[in-house]
Amino acid sequence: MTRPAIAIHGGAGVMRKITRSKEGAYLAGLTRALEAGYRVLEKGGASLDAVTAAVVALEDDPLFNAGRGAVYSSAGTHELDASIMDGKTLRAGAVAAVSRIKNPVLAARAVMEKSPNVLLAGRAAEQFAKRNGLALVRPAYFHTAERLADLRKGRKSCHGTVGAVALDRRGNLAAATSTGGYTGKAPGRIGDSPIIGAGTYADNASCAVSGTGWGEAFIRLAIAHEVCARMRYRGDSLARAAAFALARLKRLGGDGGLVAVDRRGTIAMPFNSRGMLRACVGSDGGRVVRIC
Amino acid sequence: MTRPAIAIHGGAGVMRKITRSKEGAYLAGLTRALEAGYRVLEKGGASLDAVTAAVVALEDDPLFNAGRGAVYSSAGTHELDASIMDGKTLRAGAVAAVSRIKNPVLAARAVMEKSPNVLLAGRAAEQFAKRNGLALVRPAYFHTAERLADLRKGRKSCHGTVGAVALDRRGNLAAATSTGGYTGKAPGRIGDSPIIGAGTYADNASCAVSGTGWGEAFIRLAIAHEVCARMRYRGDSLARAAAFALARLKRLGGDGGLVAVDRRGTIAMPFNSRGMLRACVGSDGGRVVRIC
Repeated sequence: MTRPAIAIHGGAGVMRKITRSKEGAYLAGLTRALEAGYRVLEKGGASLDAVTAAVVALEDDPLFNAGRGAVYSSAGTHELDASIMDGKTLRAGAVAAVSRIKNPVLAARAVMEKSPNVLLAGRAAEQFAKRNGLALVRPAYFHTAERLADLRKGRKSCHGTVGAVALDRRGNLAAATSTGGYTGKAPGRIGDSPIIGAGTYADNASCAVSGTGWGEAFIRLAIAHEVCARMRYRGDSLARAAAFALARLKRLGGDGGLVAVDRRGTIAMPFNSRGMLRACVGSDGGRVVRIC
Repeated sequence: MTRPAIAIHGGAGVMRKITRSKEGAYLAGLTRALEAGYRVLEKGGASLDAVTAAVVALEDDPLFNAGRGAVYSSAGTHELDASIMDGKTLRAGAVAAVSRIKNPVLAARAVMEKSPNVLLAGRAAEQFAKRNGLALVRPAYFHTAERLADLRKGRKSCHGTVGAVALDRRGNLAAATSTGGYTGKAPGRIGDSPIIGAGTYADNASCAVSGTGWGEAFIRLAIAHEVCARMRYRGDSLARAAAFALARLKRLGGDGGLVAVDRRGTIAMPFNSRGMLRACVGSDGGRVVRIC
């Protein structure tokens, strides 16, 4: 039996926004999501269920830019993206530019498990989610006064993606990512979060990765797949592969970070932004919950 | 000065549909697109302009499933996807699920050059294209009697993507892909063609790739980036990297093919489907135009 491990993130480069009074709330939110995922693994559950549980917890927490706490587009709307991938079978699912799905990661999982497709966008994705019994909500569900103030004041957005990666007792890897994009993004803009290979990738042959940061650069570098490919084809350790991917990101002028776990339970949580909300339980059971 | 090279495809697995009487028309269409791209390279133009010219020619030809000849979705609509990537700068652009843009590859290029984003979807992409002076058309432009008959008779669709890869005299690589998806696809379904890393990738450090086939498998394997990564990190030749990617595709139960060119002008056009419409001009100036 493999010892399970999990790592999650709640966005990179968000430090300016987190006043000391709110630090505790963020750490608590991260811890809740981490434990929601780890409980699944401890009971012998699948990594796919663990990353789903962790990301749902982050989506339901208005502090994080995904699900409930999604930021506003330039049109004053919310457009959410999410994806999930199973490292054992390389099955994957994703939704993009959805405005009415309470938990986009659950819709991504339904696309993976109940459709012949990998990526569904917009209204069609919402109809698919509804047909599969997922909760739809009114736009008001995503309203948060602080996010609206961000838009109105033209505050530069944090890269507030959330995500999780996990290794279960059977040795299977999984990854999931969910986001509201960035404040003031163009409607119809799709970032890296729903793109398999960019924001999310999992392959039992190497590792599972979830990214957060300047989405356009993550897409151009196919960052999540890049980390896996360097491990697989170059023989890099996870830490080295992840560091190299971030170095390439920096050369493109991009910032952000990622969480990753390999098939031995090694965890990496590198970032080149001012900070990254992150937490993990390693294969030794040790917890880390950090902001800077 | 590098000797230029170009390769294009007009879809894989389409053999059943091409009766002998139409073979000539397909070969002529491929040749026109090939020469449109190669002319750019011969004059010392950029690979980015060459792949754009070749893909525009294929989009304008009703024989191919992209632009004018796009297949119908299950809703009787047309939803087109396209992407383009510059191997020198790793800049990229893409549009997805657009219904009114005459040449989606030009919109993808405008996204790359005139927006801060990589991927725009749906109506927002159409508005962006319009603002940038691109031709919009009415849905009737995409109507073709034969494609409609395909939908109505429930004919199993070919994988009719089109694409091009090129190397120019300066040694720069580029790739572009465009598609109407598959007949009877769910509205809102996005395949690999607009996904950087899946259907399209270009990196001067390795090669340029454009794929065609079962899009969902191309996404799950990040096929285009996989070919580049194997060359870069494993030291594979282009032919070996491409063959390995197709072998992985086959193991997932997927079929299709790809065209690729590396920085030395070597061309690969492998496929595991019954055929692939393809054509190339190698760095020795020799032409190949084939269906089976």
